[in-house]
Amino acid sequence: MSANRWLLPDAIEDVLPPAAARIESLRRLLLDMFQRHGYKYIMPPLLEYMESLVTGSSHDLDLRTFKLVDQISGRMLGIRADITPQVARIDAHLLNRRGVARLCYCGSVLHTLPAGFNATREPLQIGAEIYGHQGIEADIEIVSLLNEVLQLSSLDATRIDLGHVDIFHALLRDAGLNAAAEQAIFSALQAKDIPALRDLTQCMNESSRAALLALPELYGGREVLDRARKLLPPKKAGHALDELQQLADALPALPIGFDLADLRGYDYHNGIVFAAYHANSSGAIALGGRYDKIGKDYGQARPATGFSMDLRIITQLSPLEQEQSAILAPWNRDEQLNREVIRLREQGEIVWRQLPGHEDSLGEINCDRQLVLRDGRWVVEAMNSTSNAHGRQRHI
Amino acid sequence: MSANRWLLPDAIEDVLPPAAARIESLRRLLLDMFQRHGYKYIMPPLLEYMESLVTGSSHDLDLRTFKLVDQISGRMLGIRADITPQVARIDAHLLNRRGVARLCYCGSVLHTLPAGFNATREPLQIGAEIYGHQGIEADIEIVSLLNEVLQLSSLDATRIDLGHVDIFHALLRDAGLNAAAEQAIFSALQAKDIPALRDLTQCMNESSRAALLALPELYGGREVLDRARKLLPPKKAGHALDELQQLADALPALPIGFDLADLRGYDYHNGIVFAAYHANSSGAIALGGRYDKIGKDYGQARPATGFSMDLRIITQLSPLEQEQSAILAPWNRDEQLNREVIRLREQGEIVWRQLPGHEDSLGEINCDRQLVLRDGRWVVEAMNSTSNAHGRQRHI
Repeated sequence: MSANRWLLPDAIEDVLPPAAARIESLRRLLLDMFQRHGYKYIMPPLLEYMESLVTGSSHDLDLRTFKLVDQISGRMLGIRADITPQVARIDAHLLNRRGVARLCYCGSVLHTLPAGFNATREPLQIGAEIYGHQGIEADIEIVSLLNEVLQLSSLDATRIDLGHVDIFHALLRDAGLNAAAEQAIFSALQAKDIPALRDLTQCMNESSRAALLALPELYGGREVLDRARKLLPPKKAGHALDELQQLADALPALPIGFDLADLRGYDYHNGIVFAAYHANSSGAIALGGRYDKIGKDYGQARPATGFSMDLRIITQLSPLEQEQSAILAPWNRDEQLNREVIRLREQGEIVWRQLPGHEDSLGEINCDRQLVLRDGRWVVEAMNSTSNAHGRQRHI
Repeated sequence: MSANRWLLPDAIEDVLPPAAARIESLRRLLLDMFQRHGYKYIMPPLLEYMESLVTGSSHDLDLRTFKLVDQISGRMLGIRADITPQVARIDAHLLNRRGVARLCYCGSVLHTLPAGFNATREPLQIGAEIYGHQGIEADIEIVSLLNEVLQLSSLDATRIDLGHVDIFHALLRDAGLNAAAEQAIFSALQAKDIPALRDLTQCMNESSRAALLALPELYGGREVLDRARKLLPPKKAGHALDELQQLADALPALPIGFDLADLRGYDYHNGIVFAAYHANSSGAIALGGRYDKIGKDYGQARPATGFSMDLRIITQLSPLEQEQSAILAPWNRDEQLNREVIRLREQGEIVWRQLPGHEDSLGEINCDRQLVLRDGRWVVEAMNSTSNAHGRQRHI
C-alpha cells in the first residue's frame, strides 16, 4: 500500500507551482474587483447539516453532496457541493438586511462524482450575488459584472447566453403534469433531446407543446428574441421576453446571445438565467441567474441573482502570466548581507537564500540575479549563463 | 425542521464581513511575505485516500479525520485534518527535487471533534515548510520566518518556546517499553501530569527516570538550557541541547523561551520543535518543528521543518484594521456618471450603486462620500450627517 500513497482519488488533484500562483493571482484580481463594486466578502463553512445545504427539491445537489455523521450531534452533515445556498442562508438569517446586500465568496466545494468527462470533484467556486432587489437593474448589474470578470481574466472569444426559466414553467402550468413528469421534461429540454421531448409532451395542449418543442431551436444571437415572439404564445412568454429584451438592450457592448432551452441545474433558479461560454471550453465557464425562492427555505425569501464559476477553469483558460524572477543570495551571518536581503524583500523582490551544501541546485526557483560582494559591498548583479546554478542543475 | 435551517453544527461557523475581509487581508500579507522568501505556493486537495492522509502511527490524526466512501473506487476517503502530510507527499513525489524546496500553503481543514474548549472544527491552516536541508540553518530560517509572521500580524507579547523531541526518545531508548507504554508516557508528559508520569516510569532506570521527571520543570527563558545541562545525562541529551543552543544563539533578538516537555501532537515530529504563544490566547498560536521521517511513508524521507497556524486565530488576535469607506452613487444610465464610476473604481475606490427604490437603506456598507451632479458634472462630495443614508438606516 505504501507505494501507492502518493496516488490521489479520481478527479482530485494537487495544484503545484506555478499553477497555484496563477490561481491565487486571479483570485485576488477578481475579489478586489468585486470589492470595488461594493460586494462584501464572506466565508461560509465547508461543513453544514444536510438540511441546510440541500434546499427545496434539489435532488441533483443532494446526490452530489458527500455525507458524514456528526460525532457531536449524531446528525447527518454534508460537505458543501455549492456555495450559493450558503450565501442565501447567510443573507436570510445572519445579515437580516431589509435593503440591498452585495456578497461575494471564493472557496472549494466537493462533488461525490465529477459533473462530466474531465471535470474535477473539487471545483474552486468563486461568485458574486445581489440580494434584495427585484428589478431588472440587478440582472443588468450582475451580467455586466460577469463580463468584467471575463475581461479582467483576459478571456476573449466569450459569449454570454441568456435564458428565462419562467417560459418553461408558464408553458407547463396548465398541463396538469405531476412533479416527476415535469422533471423528465425539464431534463429532456436541458439535454435538447427532441425525440424524448415529443414523447413526454403528448398529453399537453397543442399550442404549449409546439412552443415547448420550439425552445431548443431558439438559440443564437440577438435576433432570437424576434423569432421567439413569433413562436411562443405572448400570454405565457411575453413578460419573460420583455425582460430579456430589456437586459440585452441595456448591455449593447456585451457578447450577448440567447438559449431559451437552457434552464440551469440544481432546480433553484427562476426568472432570467445566463451562462458564459469560451471558445476553448466545451461546457459553460460561468453559470448564473435569478433564484428568488431559495431564501424561503431559510425563512426569508428575498429577490436574488448572481453567478459563480470554477476559478481553476477560468485560470486554465486565462492567458495571464506572472512569474516573478528571484535574486540568489548566499547563506551567511554577514550583517550587511542580511540587511540588504531585508531591503530587497521590502521592495517586493523574491530573494532565495542558498542553504549551505546546496550551491549546485536551485530547485525550481527562477533566479536571474544574485547578491555578490564587490569591494566590500553586497550588490545585485545579473547572473550570466556560466554562474546560473539553475541552468547548471538542468544539465546534471 | 425548516425553522432550524440556519443553525450550524457545533464548532462550525460562518465568517461574515468585516471579519472575512480581515482574514483575507492578513492571508495576502503572509503569503506575499512567504513568496518574497522564495516559498512556492501549493494547493493540495481537500480529499484524499485515508492511507495518504494519515501517515505512520498517527492515531490522533486518524481520529480527527472525517471519513467518506468513494463512490468511484469504493475505497475510504478522508477530508484533510492537517495539510503538512500533504505537503510532504507533494515534495516526495511530485516535485522530486534533490535540492532544497521551500513551500507554503493556506487552506481549510476539518476535524471530527474540536481540539479543545472553544476550538473550531474548521481551522484555516496557513504554513511554510523547508525540505531537503538537514542542517540547523533550516531551523534558524523557519523560526525566524515565524517571528516575521507574528511581526507582520502586529502581534506583540508573543513568545516562541523551543523543545527537542530527541531528548524524550533518547531517555526511553533503553527502557524496553512497548509502544503503548511509550505513548502513555508521551501523553502524560504533554499534559505535564507528574503523578501519572511517576507511576508510568517505575520500571525505568533511575538516571533516565529522574531526567524524564525533570523535563516538565525545564521551562522558561534562555537560562533553562544551563539548568538542563545539569539535570539531563549528557550522553542522551547533549547533542539536542547543543542544537537548541545554536538555534537560540542565532536569533538573539527573538522572544525565545524553552519548554523541554513539549513534544507536539500528531506523532510525526522529531528533532527541534517549537510553539508560539500570545498573551491573549491560552493555547499555542503556531506549532512547528522537524518532521524528517514523514516523507518515508511516501517513499522518500527528506529532512523537513516548518510551522503552521490557524489564520482565523491569528486574525482575531491581530489589531490590524482595514475598513475602506465607500462612495455612494445613484443608479442611472447617465454615460458621464458611468464613466466616473469606472474611473473611481480603477483608482481603487469602492463605489456602491444604489439600486432604484432602496434610497433609504445602505445595508452595512460604510459610505462617507457620494457622487452628485453639480453644474452638469459628477463630483465626489463628503456626505454630511443628514444625507448619510447609513446613519438614517441605523435610526429606523
